[in-house]
Amino acid sequence: MDRFDVTDTNRVRRLPERGHYDRATAYAVLDAAPLCHVSFAMDGRPAIIPTLHARWGDRLLLHGSSASRLLRHIGAGHEVCVGVTVLDGLVLARSLFHTSMNYRSVVLFGRGTLLTEAEERLAALEVLSEKMMPGRWAEARRPNPQELKATAIAAIPITLASVKIRAGGPKDDPADLAMAVWAGVIPLAVAAGTPEPDAALAPGIPVPGYVETWRRERSA
Amino acid sequence: MDRFDVTDTNRVRRLPERGHYDRATAYAVLDAAPLCHVSFAMDGRPAIIPTLHARWGDRLLLHGSSASRLLRHIGAGHEVCVGVTVLDGLVLARSLFHTSMNYRSVVLFGRGTLLTEAEERLAALEVLSEKMMPGRWAEARRPNPQELKATAIAAIPITLASVKIRAGGPKDDPADLAMAVWAGVIPLAVAAGTPEPDAALAPGIPVPGYVETWRRERSA
Repeated sequence: MDRFDVTDTNRVRRLPERGHYDRATAYAVLDAAPLCHVSFAMDGRPAIIPTLHARWGDRLLLHGSSASRLLRHIGAGHEVCVGVTVLDGLVLARSLFHTSMNYRSVVLFGRGTLLTEAEERLAALEVLSEKMMPGRWAEARRPNPQELKATAIAAIPITLASVKIRAGGPKDDPADLAMAVWAGVIPLAVAAGTPEPDAALAPGIPVPGYVETWRRERSA
Repeated sequence: MDRFDVTDTNRVRRLPERGHYDRATAYAVLDAAPLCHVSFAMDGRPAIIPTLHARWGDRLLLHGSSASRLLRHIGAGHEVCVGVTVLDGLVLARSLFHTSMNYRSVVLFGRGTLLTEAEERLAALEVLSEKMMPGRWAEARRPNPQELKATAIAAIPITLASVKIRAGGPKDDPADLAMAVWAGVIPLAVAAGTPEPDAALAPGIPVPGYVETWRRERSA
């Protein structure tokens, strides 16, 4: 299935022309964003938790402490709603009404399960690690049994989602185009600064090549 | 009241040493982040919407279409939970278990109301505009009656919130410090690129000084 079904749950209602329902578009946004916000009901009241995520094929992975309320909540079979937003720019229109942001966002509705099988859990942690910093898994110390016990990993099947995208310049009213006011887009992106070595780092250990590669892709 | 009460709702449970409950710390994070995610229950199911926000004194402002489900939901008196997260860096520890992110996040629980009084609504829109781009309100065309009618503005009193902050380098296990693996922080920040003028921009209109000032504060 290359496209999500469009239901009353995931249909983009405001500005439906910005809505997309194809898996490839959604996956590109999920992969581009470093973190997500998870909405869930805690004792019937809305709650939210920001956390890292990674896509593993057609599943979204979240992880955290085994004692985490969110992970226990998912493990108990409750529905969650995950929001992932990449901010691409400020759109300065001549009118404040049409002033906007360029963005790509995914909203995913689903129920997950906690991974229990040792090999699958380790593979999922590798996916989470490699999303955050490709190359790190091969070099850093992998989790020991005690650390694995302290870690819960949830996998949410990506079955119902929507994407909303705004791109391009301002859409001003024709009557405003003659105004002597600058209009356009200010691009925004997450940029990586100069790596700061740990104070306890032994001398002679250089910044790894995979970090430098990652940084170059995120330099302003 | 300089500090939020700590209740079962807003108490930071995981890594409580990262929790803060003072208003000044929360406000600095709310002011620094360009957007928030709002968690709410739609027909009893968790939903999430990313949107702009601005702090107006001790209230958090959200705005959108008068037809927006979220704004109608707030206007109907339902509780929402707002998450605001600023990502400050990747923390590469020698072990994957201690690998982390530096971040500042606020979670705010509350019920809002829709602003109805014309003068207050216009003042709120100015706050929202000036948060996004200081100086723009004085120059761009302000909303006309029709646009104002199409715009809903919610104000949520900031009465129950928590802040969670991680800063600084990796916290490795002592036994891992001797590993020949680079460890440290890769700082991350939202950076503003070169402004892209609207295709329809009349010649001779320069990028405004307030845009250049804003960009300089966000150059990598």
